[in-house]
Amino acid sequence: MKVKEIMDKEFIDVSPDEDLVKVSIKMEKYRRFTSPVVDNKKRLLGWITTLDVLKGFRDNNKKVSDIMHPKEEAVIVHQNDPARLAVLEASRHKLVTIPVLDDQETVVGVIRTFNIVETLSHLYEIKVYKIFEAMAEELKGVSWEELMEAAAIITRRETGKRITPQEYEERIRNSTFGEAIWATGGLERFFVGLIAIGELVIARKVARARK
Amino acid sequence: MKVKEIMDKEFIDVSPDEDLVKVSIKMEKYRRFTSPVVDNKKRLLGWITTLDVLKGFRDNNKKVSDIMHPKEEAVIVHQNDPARLAVLEASRHKLVTIPVLDDQETVVGVIRTFNIVETLSHLYEIKVYKIFEAMAEELKGVSWEELMEAAAIITRRETGKRITPQEYEERIRNSTFGEAIWATGGLERFFVGLIAIGELVIARKVARARK
Repeated sequence: MKVKEIMDKEFIDVSPDEDLVKVSIKMEKYRRFTSPVVDNKKRLLGWITTLDVLKGFRDNNKKVSDIMHPKEEAVIVHQNDPARLAVLEASRHKLVTIPVLDDQETVVGVIRTFNIVETLSHLYEIKVYKIFEAMAEELKGVSWEELMEAAAIITRRETGKRITPQEYEERIRNSTFGEAIWATGGLERFFVGLIAIGELVIARKVARARK
Repeated sequence: MKVKEIMDKEFIDVSPDEDLVKVSIKMEKYRRFTSPVVDNKKRLLGWITTLDVLKGFRDNNKKVSDIMHPKEEAVIVHQNDPARLAVLEASRHKLVTIPVLDDQETVVGVIRTFNIVETLSHLYEIKVYKIFEAMAEELKGVSWEELMEAAAIITRRETGKRITPQEYEERIRNSTFGEAIWATGGLERFFVGLIAIGELVIARKVARARK
């Protein structure tokens, strides 16, 4: 996945000679804590945050150019960079927003941390049910009912609580991969549970074939 | 995982009668765009952002109480809520920070979006190798070498490309869960591959036991 696939194209920008009071009203209107500073061709010149504007107010500054951080100090990504880079940069520098540039250094979007949260959490929203469907399809000769039965047995073994195959099916229809990971205590634990279920249905299939 | 496990305990707070100029300096010093407003027992009274302080400056307000949003308007989470709730709230309301309360409504931390990014991307960054290690441990009587051999066979079957068990091991030592999902074309496909490997090693183990 590339930066351009997760960036926000709805962003504000300001010019160096813009009035700080007007800028503060614009930032409030669009609820933005940061803004790229651009020239008349939308090329990146620098960066401001509401904290800089506050300092500008205190110091009686009038223009964006009085308070802006130069481009060299800004953390930027390019639109064709891997999305993973934006994730790392946001996390490393504790940033709220990262400007996204094209090859001409024009600002084409911004990455906001909740764009990243949305993208990452989307992955975790896949229903556990879907994973079991794929598993049932892969394991030839094992029926859906046998799979649910094995899952109920393994769950009982690991949690000590009785659960019917029907209850198990109901549960995975409603729960997501993200919830399952949080609930089982991590990706490895979740996967170990799946493997245990797989092992049981395969052992039962083999036993059946031997009869 | 619970909210308290991913929250930031290093946060600033302000009181309702604090002077706005001093508050703006505090926010700048700690690089915070938002702050909870608390009473003298640190119980939540409201919420401010740098955008509110900017408006306060423009309107000639003097104190936090002139600009703060009441507690009722703030999105909050409790420390024992599932971490997932904070993820959903941050994403839904496009928030930068969410205050975390205990049972006495005392502010005990804040969730910042990059805390979430860190946590989610951490999951994404788990080495595929770790998943295989958990699998080897779960499947009693299957050695690591047998697992790698099965993995190499399944990979050859699915991609048509020859790969040795050693090359496979090298690959999973370097690749992450996030990359694997991307490479295999989705979470379900990734799990199906793992299940196929599990099925093969189990079949081989059963065959060996029968001899």
